[in-house]
Amino acid sequence: MNTRIEHDLLGDLAVPEDAWYGIQTQRALDNFSITGVPISHFPELVKALAMVKAAAARANRDLGVLDGRKAEAILTACDEIIADRLHDQFVVDLIQGGAGTSTNMNANEVIANLALEKLGHEKGQYQHLHPNDDVNRSQSTNDAYPTAACLSVQFAAEPLIDAIASLKKALLAKGEEFADVVKMGRTQLQDAVPMTLGQEFEGFAVNLGEDIDRIHEACALLCEVNLGGTAIGTGINAHPRYQALAVRYLAELSGKPIVPAAHLVEATSDMGAFVFFSGILKRFAVKIGKMCNDLRLLSSGPRTGFAEILLPPMQPGSSIMPGKVNPVIPEAVNQTAYQVIASDLAVTLAAEAGQLQLNAMEPMIVYNLLNSIRMLCNACTMLEERCIRGIRANREQCARHLENSIGVITALVPHIGYGNASRIAATALNSGSTVRELVVAEGLLDALQLDRLLSPQAMLAPLPEAP
Amino acid sequence: MNTRIEHDLLGDLAVPEDAWYGIQTQRALDNFSITGVPISHFPELVKALAMVKAAAARANRDLGVLDGRKAEAILTACDEIIADRLHDQFVVDLIQGGAGTSTNMNANEVIANLALEKLGHEKGQYQHLHPNDDVNRSQSTNDAYPTAACLSVQFAAEPLIDAIASLKKALLAKGEEFADVVKMGRTQLQDAVPMTLGQEFEGFAVNLGEDIDRIHEACALLCEVNLGGTAIGTGINAHPRYQALAVRYLAELSGKPIVPAAHLVEATSDMGAFVFFSGILKRFAVKIGKMCNDLRLLSSGPRTGFAEILLPPMQPGSSIMPGKVNPVIPEAVNQTAYQVIASDLAVTLAAEAGQLQLNAMEPMIVYNLLNSIRMLCNACTMLEERCIRGIRANREQCARHLENSIGVITALVPHIGYGNASRIAATALNSGSTVRELVVAEGLLDALQLDRLLSPQAMLAPLPEAP
Amino acid sequence: MNTRIEHDLLGDLAVPEDAWYGIQTQRALDNFSITGVPISHFPELVKALAMVKAAAARANRDLGVLDGRKAEAILTACDEIIADRLHDQFVVDLIQGGAGTSTNMNANEVIANLALEKLGHEKGQYQHLHPNDDVNRSQSTNDAYPTAACLSVQFAAEPLIDAIASLKKALLAKGEEFADVVKMGRTQLQDAVPMTLGQEFEGFAVNLGEDIDRIHEACALLCEVNLGGTAIGTGINAHPRYQALAVRYLAELSGKPIVPAAHLVEATSDMGAFVFFSGILKRFAVKIGKMCNDLRLLSSGPRTGFAEILLPPMQPGSSIMPGKVNPVIPEAVNQTAYQVIASDLAVTLAAEAGQLQLNAMEPMIVYNLLNSIRMLCNACTMLEERCIRGIRANREQCARHLENSIGVITALVPHIGYGNASRIAATALNSGSTVRELVVAEGLLDALQLDRLLSPQAMLAPLPEAP
Amino acid sequence: MNTRIEHDLLGDLAVPEDAWYGIQTQRALDNFSITGVPISHFPELVKALAMVKAAAARANRDLGVLDGRKAEAILTACDEIIADRLHDQFVVDLIQGGAGTSTNMNANEVIANLALEKLGHEKGQYQHLHPNDDVNRSQSTNDAYPTAACLSVQFAAEPLIDAIASLKKALLAKGEEFADVVKMGRTQLQDAVPMTLGQEFEGFAVNLGEDIDRIHEACALLCEVNLGGTAIGTGINAHPRYQALAVRYLAELSGKPIVPAAHLVEATSDMGAFVFFSGILKRFAVKIGKMCNDLRLLSSGPRTGFAEILLPPMQPGSSIMPGKVNPVIPEAVNQTAYQVIASDLAVTLAAEAGQLQLNAMEPMIVYNLLNSIRMLCNACTMLEERCIRGIRANREQCARHLENSIGVITALVPHIGYGNASRIAATALNSGSTVRELVVAEGLLDALQLDRLLSPQAMLAPLPEAP
Repeated sequence: MNTRIEHDLLGDLAVPEDAWYGIQTQRALDNFSITGVPISHFPELVKALAMVKAAAARANRDLGVLDGRKAEAILTACDEIIADRLHDQFVVDLIQGGAGTSTNMNANEVIANLALEKLGHEKGQYQHLHPNDDVNRSQSTNDAYPTAACLSVQFAAEPLIDAIASLKKALLAKGEEFADVVKMGRTQLQDAVPMTLGQEFEGFAVNLGEDIDRIHEACALLCEVNLGGTAIGTGINAHPRYQALAVRYLAELSGKPIVPAAHLVEATSDMGAFVFFSGILKRFAVKIGKMCNDLRLLSSGPRTGFAEILLPPMQPGSSIMPGKVNPVIPEAVNQTAYQVIASDLAVTLAAEAGQLQLNAMEPMIVYNLLNSIRMLCNACTMLEERCIRGIRANREQCARHLENSIGVITALVPHIGYGNASRIAATALNSGSTVRELVVAEGLLDALQLDRLLSPQAMLAPLPEAP
Repeated sequence: MNTRIEHDLLGDLAVPEDAWYGIQTQRALDNFSITGVPISHFPELVKALAMVKAAAARANRDLGVLDGRKAEAILTACDEIIADRLHDQFVVDLIQGGAGTSTNMNANEVIANLALEKLGHEKGQYQHLHPNDDVNRSQSTNDAYPTAACLSVQFAAEPLIDAIASLKKALLAKGEEFADVVKMGRTQLQDAVPMTLGQEFEGFAVNLGEDIDRIHEACALLCEVNLGGTAIGTGINAHPRYQALAVRYLAELSGKPIVPAAHLVEATSDMGAFVFFSGILKRFAVKIGKMCNDLRLLSSGPRTGFAEILLPPMQPGSSIMPGKVNPVIPEAVNQTAYQVIASDLAVTLAAEAGQLQLNAMEPMIVYNLLNSIRMLCNACTMLEERCIRGIRANREQCARHLENSIGVITALVPHIGYGNASRIAATALNSGSTVRELVVAEGLLDALQLDRLLSPQAMLAPLPEAP
Repeated sequence: MNTRIEHDLLGDLAVPEDAWYGIQTQRALDNFSITGVPISHFPELVKALAMVKAAAARANRDLGVLDGRKAEAILTACDEIIADRLHDQFVVDLIQGGAGTSTNMNANEVIANLALEKLGHEKGQYQHLHPNDDVNRSQSTNDAYPTAACLSVQFAAEPLIDAIASLKKALLAKGEEFADVVKMGRTQLQDAVPMTLGQEFEGFAVNLGEDIDRIHEACALLCEVNLGGTAIGTGINAHPRYQALAVRYLAELSGKPIVPAAHLVEATSDMGAFVFFSGILKRFAVKIGKMCNDLRLLSSGPRTGFAEILLPPMQPGSSIMPGKVNPVIPEAVNQTAYQVIASDLAVTLAAEAGQLQLNAMEPMIVYNLLNSIRMLCNACTMLEERCIRGIRANREQCARHLENSIGVITALVPHIGYGNASRIAATALNSGSTVRELVVAEGLLDALQLDRLLSPQAMLAPLPEAP
Repeated sequence: MNTRIEHDLLGDLAVPEDAWYGIQTQRALDNFSITGVPISHFPELVKALAMVKAAAARANRDLGVLDGRKAEAILTACDEIIADRLHDQFVVDLIQGGAGTSTNMNANEVIANLALEKLGHEKGQYQHLHPNDDVNRSQSTNDAYPTAACLSVQFAAEPLIDAIASLKKALLAKGEEFADVVKMGRTQLQDAVPMTLGQEFEGFAVNLGEDIDRIHEACALLCEVNLGGTAIGTGINAHPRYQALAVRYLAELSGKPIVPAAHLVEATSDMGAFVFFSGILKRFAVKIGKMCNDLRLLSSGPRTGFAEILLPPMQPGSSIMPGKVNPVIPEAVNQTAYQVIASDLAVTLAAEAGQLQLNAMEPMIVYNLLNSIRMLCNACTMLEERCIRGIRANREQCARHLENSIGVITALVPHIGYGNASRIAATALNSGSTVRELVVAEGLLDALQLDRLLSPQAMLAPLPEAP
């Protein structure tokens, strides 16, 4: 492999000749190989970095601290990266020491070399345009990187929000489709009182849908960025008007309502918004997990389970048991949910490990957030397309359950009292008689009253007038 | 012990003669002894239960489904409990099976017996006023209990919010007191660039203070209650106008802006607002934990550590090492924070375990939330009173650190370039020379320029004009 | 309240006149009130502390560094505490700063004052016998406290092991009782192949029983103690022969095979054995949680669920639904399991927070371990006595499930091939025909062969010879 | 793309013509795309699957239930996969529904097609040799997959054990190198008593080294496999002698002391050994994390921190602060540790989610275990090679800390008493006098006695004889 020699604080190092990155990226590449997952795995992050660099360059240019020609070259380079070029040059492992310095320098170096090319120079001729002095001007990793992280999470959240919205719609459609399927509700896995299957799916839809608002709120917290704080939030080496300008440009470039953080020293080490975001992802994971548990319960069977719904068969279920079809899609979602819950712990641990003016564990926070978002997004789409849309109601089973149930006695309590009802329920369970028979036999209510009180319509909604 | 005999679905059981609770509470008392912590440990929960019962009684009375005299007796009983009477009668272990049924019945029975007394009857004469038929009228555990839980968490949050606000104020006061103490900032535990100790404490204040807003937002989510949904959210056995009335009365009684849940079937099994709340407590725990870690770092020493601040000594630090004083208060806060983070996991696990129309694990969710809130509240107050207020700056040490530091070279980068600066920093570290000496020796800047660029004022804020 | 004045490094402080503890305990009492749970909540810990103090006193006496009369008084005091006296004097909150110093000093002070009484002195006359110089002689909190913690966890584990063993026995008894109940097994909640209900309960028994061995192994790791390491493991201030002697005496007193740690500096800050123990508790929690989930599934119904077993009814299940009986005991166990899993996280967080020569978070590690052990112990006993022993099989339902199932076709695969079997299974599901009918209709096997292959005996064990 | 058509229970599907996998793999590929990480990411798992298939084929051949020619073809196919061929054909996402069925079928299909080639047939001509009837003969996913998982974890553990052993050696070498560097020990970040830097590194070595034994114990638990249990542990469709034979062959092929599980029904759903293994990985993560925290503390500085050791500089530390070098390698290890702790939670959640006769979440358990093992292995090697080996002691700083410290007074306690010592320590701290000066001035000990008691030798080990 042909190489070129670059130089930094620690001395000389060979970099592949055709690499757009430089010596500091190369050192990081040599240092870190924990996960094998490079920065480029998350294009949202690469783009966000380029936007931050572009916003800084514009502000520096306006303030006269960056030469106009250099600024143009840098901006062109950033544009290309934003347009998906050279992402494969973002090579550093996502779990890295240095609080993101390697990621920031990877961006600085790729942009510098790309800008050098625009200016007619060779890669590595940093005397003409320097990764630190020019591309990173007025910045530190400690403001540029978290700012890019905030942006990237917001970018990643967009398809997730769409996927949840679409899943919600599919659930609502099922809610409508099953609006007339009356069945027994269950609490604590024990027969309770009647409801419709439609209400059950509507409930899922409403439940998941609420988290779209939560994600929007979480994104809003991420709009407050510490760009301009430089090394520790004091703004050392930045022009007094830089912060305002750079943030305004970033808002423009990103299309997000980015604003400057209220207290830059605080903001530099604060991981609160990431912890919040992760908490929301965890909440959504808990909810979608619970729903998939329900889908698996409701479709249990076909002969020895609840069997109130039929999931679309997606693959043969067993290598030994012919004809077995398993709820593989919800199962995969459940596992995704557990992974996201675990990732929230990783984020929590990393956030707690911040020290003094910085949190050195930020790279893994960003990694876990972007990973969780992507996994949940994939899971929602998979669940909608390969499961929810194809669910059918087992109307016969639902009806059978309703008929056999003792739980309907609840509807009689306001009329015969809790004590009588308890006694009759116990008798029904032991004797096999129906509630109706026993109530009539005891003369507590007559057949007409029972017809009215035990009609599905009466039991699916608040109390009708007393019979 | 004298007893009276009560009766339920499962048969007869002796209850202590002077107990205000009844047979179902007694069964639960016999069944559950996991933690040894009774419901009464959280007066907020007991009061909230009484408010729910009172709101329901008022609504039932208005709707004509509860006799006026009975209603008055129930309301009087509730008032007494709200006024802290008979809390010791709420005896069931907080970790209990049955999704809160035992807690709900404990409330129903105590209120019934207290109401019976008002009406001139003996305890247990439920034919005159019944725990289920009258006190629990139009309710199920599945709506009454979560509604009370939502309220109780909001009640518990009030002193926590006050404690955080007070702690924030104390931190701000220290920020002001230390505004002129210039010191070295640190990133990744390595010397970075100058800042003031005041900025550091101000940062803590801002950081913790943000969570007051988050807790308010979390309380807002808890204002949506499922009262009126009865067993599974269909409102079975409740009067059509009951929900609106009962919720309105509850808002009145509690002073909280309680509103009816949008979708009662969804709301009955949804633990989302609790998960959200717990996530916020976890976030606050992460933040206060990080701050206490910092306090322990900054006060490390006295001779071999950072020693930039002095915590007030609260107790001798060692049974063997005389004169040793340890940061015991921050250490206790750190442990509290870990406990709260762990509790968040407990809440998460319980929330995910909901099944179909209910979450049977709700009691431990409520237990963990109330416990975490109380522990954090205690921790904030302890930290403020026994640590923050007494912190003193070690001004000499801060000044010494500033003088010796190589990190000040950062301020010269815009003037001598990153490359030169790196080289000089390395020389300084190895030779023991100061940055100033080396820069002058190389003729990169003159003494006057250095005076200006290296003055604390210049380094604590954005870049001054070029020298 | 009458008080006496005591003195320490920080000055004078009033202590209640009749308190057996002294000034340092009083300071800790004032400082810490996070949980409200005092040391005395765990008698195992109080006794273990007294044993450590007694072992040290014996060793110091033998080595001539502690006066014989003082030693005798200290030993008598320790004996009384070991015999349960004065536990109410161990008052400090279990979550405390100072790495256990307050707990250690609480022990030193109570023992000193008790010993002073033996010697005919008043409480607080430490010039005659001193909490630090005499009771704590040759010790530091940093070796005395972890050593006591190791012992206390072992003591606490004894009733847990007994409770698991007893639970296992009850499960095995059910395994035997249900040995002839053939039913359908389920994988992924879908009908699989036949098994007996006895095998299912036997499986639970074997599964839980394995953790008795794991707990014994975990106890073995706790037998390596750092007593003799004093402040940081270098043994400063201890006699060269102290460690060996003290540890030997402790083994004698405790009846546990205590041995000296191999590397005392390592052992002083190492929390590995506690993390291990906690991991085993978590593992057991996962297992018992899974079993209780199964019990709730198997008893779901009574009319719309699996209903293969009947749990003994322990209390009415609902305040609104008469006759409902819920699986409250397994539900309480599930919650306990979640609490223990969460506690394991607390232990993990605390263990990771150790710094340099000590782990300051040890008090909450001990608290969580002892709490988890006790909760699990209570849960096992509750589960055995109030649930397992009373479980009955629903033999009719099990038989019905077996008859209706399509899963039995698996037994034919070796004879008709996976392809044929899949096709027939699909037809059976859609048509309602039985597997048997379809196989005969297709002429794949004859009735005699089917009798043999589909007999329960044939399906409950490895393949019989080919038909 | 050219395709061939294959057929299963659900109908026809096109598979790429040159794919060695078949229809069920194709369905799984279409169904699951959560992580994007395919089975082939873990060659240990692919090989383990092939070994299980080979062991089963040998046993089936011996028992006469698999044709000899087919068996030979299958065995040759397995050998090739064990020798790393065709791993790229193991394409299914590691997070998948179906409890591993897709992974098992991926193996069955690749092996079948490879065996078909050996027999001179085309891919997909399963009438000659069938993935289910022949390759999967006498097996179910439910025994074949967990058995392969148990093996794969053991294979993956080998390099981890080597990496820990090597890291331990490097730490011991540093322990020796620093054996004469006397420094102050610290407890709770406060100056304690003297020790050597060598003891500190030795402590790290011993601490991490202990987990080699723990990993071996965890591997031992994984040696008990459920192969032969088939679908649910009853052994349906396996020959009575199959289990013993297959397990013996597997032990031979794998070189691991594999034995049959004691209770196959229990073993089929039991995740206990995986939970145990994960707990050990977590324990190791906690330990290595604590050590890296210590390394970062000890190297904090260079001018305002502890600065007792110097980590080898691996990359420039800052994009804005020249000359800054950060502890990037320990930081990366800390993040890895958090990731592993989080993965342990994922495993815990998945294990608790098992239901009845199977745990459907097993794929993500295996994924998390293999991932954690690999990350830890990478982290150990990185830490050793890029950090530990290059650490140097800052002898001057260590000596300075020792001289200045007040903590040495501890060594005088047995001679002047805790009370005197406390008073002198306080005076020293406030006055700036040394302990020595004050003790002499008060006439408590003379210079000669102090020389002896305060010599490093005296303070680094148990108490010398009284002076």
